[in-house]
Amino acid sequence: MLWSGWGDPAKAAPLPDTVTGLLRDLLGVKPRDTRPLALDDLSVPEPALETGAFAALADAVGGAAHIRDDAESRLRHTRGKSTPDLLRIRAGDTADVPAAVVLPATHDEVLAVLRACAQHGLAVVPFGGGTSVVGGLAPEGTARSAFVALDLRRMDGLLDLDPVSRTATLQPGLRAPEAEALLAEHGFTLGHFPQSYEWATLGGFAAARSSGQASAGYGRFDDMVLGLTLATPEGTLDVGRAPRSAAGPDLRQLILGSEGAFGVITAVIVRIRPEPRARVYEGWRFASFEEGTAALRRLAQDGPLPTVLRLSDETETLVGLAQPDAIGVTQNAGCLAITGYEGTEEDTAYRRERAAAVLRACGGTYAGTEPGERWAHGRYSAPYLRDCLLDAGAFAETLETAAFWSRIPELYAAVRTALTDTLTAAGTPPLVMCHISHVYENGASLYFTVVSAQGEDPVAHWAPAKRAAGEAVLAAGGTISHHHGIGTDHRDAYVREIGPLGIEALRAVKRCLDPEGLLNPGILLPTH
Amino acid sequence: MLWSGWGDPAKAAPLPDTVTGLLRDLLGVKPRDTRPLALDDLSVPEPALETGAFAALADAVGGAAHIRDDAESRLRHTRGKSTPDLLRIRAGDTADVPAAVVLPATHDEVLAVLRACAQHGLAVVPFGGGTSVVGGLAPEGTARSAFVALDLRRMDGLLDLDPVSRTATLQPGLRAPEAEALLAEHGFTLGHFPQSYEWATLGGFAAARSSGQASAGYGRFDDMVLGLTLATPEGTLDVGRAPRSAAGPDLRQLILGSEGAFGVITAVIVRIRPEPRARVYEGWRFASFEEGTAALRRLAQDGPLPTVLRLSDETETLVGLAQPDAIGVTQNAGCLAITGYEGTEEDTAYRRERAAAVLRACGGTYAGTEPGERWAHGRYSAPYLRDCLLDAGAFAETLETAAFWSRIPELYAAVRTALTDTLTAAGTPPLVMCHISHVYENGASLYFTVVSAQGEDPVAHWAPAKRAAGEAVLAAGGTISHHHGIGTDHRDAYVREIGPLGIEALRAVKRCLDPEGLLNPGILLPTH
Repeated sequence: MLWSGWGDPAKAAPLPDTVTGLLRDLLGVKPRDTRPLALDDLSVPEPALETGAFAALADAVGGAAHIRDDAESRLRHTRGKSTPDLLRIRAGDTADVPAAVVLPATHDEVLAVLRACAQHGLAVVPFGGGTSVVGGLAPEGTARSAFVALDLRRMDGLLDLDPVSRTATLQPGLRAPEAEALLAEHGFTLGHFPQSYEWATLGGFAAARSSGQASAGYGRFDDMVLGLTLATPEGTLDVGRAPRSAAGPDLRQLILGSEGAFGVITAVIVRIRPEPRARVYEGWRFASFEEGTAALRRLAQDGPLPTVLRLSDETETLVGLAQPDAIGVTQNAGCLAITGYEGTEEDTAYRRERAAAVLRACGGTYAGTEPGERWAHGRYSAPYLRDCLLDAGAFAETLETAAFWSRIPELYAAVRTALTDTLTAAGTPPLVMCHISHVYENGASLYFTVVSAQGEDPVAHWAPAKRAAGEAVLAAGGTISHHHGIGTDHRDAYVREIGPLGIEALRAVKRCLDPEGLLNPGILLPTH
Repeated sequence: MLWSGWGDPAKAAPLPDTVTGLLRDLLGVKPRDTRPLALDDLSVPEPALETGAFAALADAVGGAAHIRDDAESRLRHTRGKSTPDLLRIRAGDTADVPAAVVLPATHDEVLAVLRACAQHGLAVVPFGGGTSVVGGLAPEGTARSAFVALDLRRMDGLLDLDPVSRTATLQPGLRAPEAEALLAEHGFTLGHFPQSYEWATLGGFAAARSSGQASAGYGRFDDMVLGLTLATPEGTLDVGRAPRSAAGPDLRQLILGSEGAFGVITAVIVRIRPEPRARVYEGWRFASFEEGTAALRRLAQDGPLPTVLRLSDETETLVGLAQPDAIGVTQNAGCLAITGYEGTEEDTAYRRERAAAVLRACGGTYAGTEPGERWAHGRYSAPYLRDCLLDAGAFAETLETAAFWSRIPELYAAVRTALTDTLTAAGTPPLVMCHISHVYENGASLYFTVVSAQGEDPVAHWAPAKRAAGEAVLAAGGTISHHHGIGTDHRDAYVREIGPLGIEALRAVKRCLDPEGLLNPGILLPTH
């Protein structure tokens, strides 16, 4: 993973000329060199770990070989991948660097690390793929002297596969493609394909309540999780004996979304499905976002549901971001929807035919498989595009929400207006694009992409727009995040969303499992 | 509701002669008069409420007219409807009678009742339909002087219906048929049909994580709940802004299943669906429970899913309990499965045809619609049958669990053996019947019905068998309850199921929301 941006630098492509033109003509982005510093030019704050702490941690993980405190390792575990995170690290701001990176190999080693950190006044930040876009990797407001990044990459095994129950027990440090490869050896798939797919880990999916691009067909990650093992400073919590139970509250759903603040997820039991025999992705065009939204709602409520179901608004369709490979391609009028079908040949054909009839009845025009194929080909490439935009002096960021269907029009308008008004008033009129990528019987998510010129201090310049968008989300009845999570960036909004009593209930759980506040201080929950 | 048994006495039917014969010949049940005492013969312990408490409660609920402390009202709010509950009340054991019954009309009145109870040293037991079968209405181990039953029957409105989002906001005291009637005026259904359907309330469904007979099609009640309002001694908690969210843990799933121990549910936002146009129920026969289980698993994993899907084991099929109307009917060989389809004409026909092909491929023989119609007609009648069995000197009780598919055979055998061995050793060899009534991709529930002769002290006689069944469930990897809940009866097993750290986390939540321990002491969680 590129320390200053996304993914594998070899996979990055330069910005197409059409985009450079758009940025210049539409958004007033002046060409300037805003490329990141070189890694060697960054200075990492001293000190790293004091000797006693290092020895205790080395003891916990089976030797000093599994602790890294060199500058590069620490920099590579600094913050996540939000645009403000990237802008800070590109500019050499290393304030949030961990004291060391610790690599446990087992659940018991994780417990031992937690004990060592408790004894030596260290905070702990669990680290999977490092792809948080909500400030989930930079603790705040802690009295502890420093923090270590608990990198779970050595815990990357398939522990068990039960083909009768169709469950698999996976370790948290497995990246999604590795997990898919292990399952494919047995003919199964997990079916979880978020945009971070190539880098994110199973533990991170669980901790952050992830939702993938095929959620209509395979469900969200929190639908897939049947059991969890959590290592906490107070011991081990094992939950999930049956798919569903009436034995009290569902503790799985208390751990899912806890973002490392309650404990370290050391194993997940997930639902698996047979690998699909057939895969088809195709495009549909609607005259307006409203018309397309109504069509998606009809499929979500009355079926049949495709495996993938997305709809870009007029702006996103016009710019071509609906299919990143096709940016600048003409004839991008109206709103493009992508439908995808995965499964057996028979089931795929049936759903495709029935869904087509519904989409047609709702005003859709079939656009063939090309837009679907383009979408599928470019489905993980948007973060690379962002790096190029940042290099070119533009600002690009995303945010997302969800609400009940009847609230969607107001929520859509409110967030667009908040972003547009704030950035325009600040002298950088933005392009605001939106899509629906996750649908439910009772509502949907909205995912916004904002591109504008960078302000003088781009992080500070963005903050009021982000704040205004959050206010608009809450005022229009949306949730502050549908799949990115809370981290530190959404913490204040989260306090408002669930109210003081909801926060106190979660803090009570945290005090019970992590009484000294080692774990992810200031992430998810306020520290005071 | 009959104070000493189930439902509307006018609906009760006498035991068929065939059943009386079965009891005598198979189980050695000797005819004797074990009918309950008359209501007037029961003596209710004094004192009820002291004057100051009465005045404070009257103030909280808008006058003394909404407090009932007569003997009959108190008796009608004593315990729930488990067989031990019935045996105790039939025998005149009134130890668990509440001091009074309080009937609030609004959320704010519930908050006021909680304040009044805190001030006057009273515990509070929320009361919906009173149908708990796990000791969920008789608090234990509290230092508080007495308890009041908080009867929610006056909170029985449809507060909001959103046809676009397909959601309805319902009050907790609504009984299920009343809720269905209110929704039907708008063309919608909830689709929640547990055996307690005719008497249980929406608040109870949520508090106890209920699952209905049509769960394959409509989901469990915890799938249906999109939002909740909870009145607690520390104030109000409102959760659920969107179908799904990544904003922290899912607090809905912390309230669902909390059995009144965290607060009083005063409103639920539920998913609703269009009333089905078509309904078909039919029967299939399998040579063995194993063969039938494999067929159900295939439908649950690869589809299509019927709306209702059940399978009785050999014993339950033989006795005819699979279709209570047909008890004693001959030709009950093998294992009977019931499949039901509800929805549009087209969808119902498609699923029915496809499911039939799967069932046939798995060895099933179509048995026509008659068994399905019989099942549908008798679907709520089993509790009436139990009353007759108790009258006739027999003992009858049910218990249930769930597990992953690969564990089902072992779990089935273990629980049957535990029940049979314990009761046989005690001199009352039982008939143990079982069915699967809820299926998931990754597992299923098992529901056991036990009939035997009554012991000398039938409550004490049953206790070791119940304990042995619980041990067998936990040892075989099942959950202690799939839809009945914890109450007081399953509390010890629950502590073992989720472990000390899980219990402590939930107790931390309880201390936060109910610091003085007013609410349902000893129900769900141990008091110390």
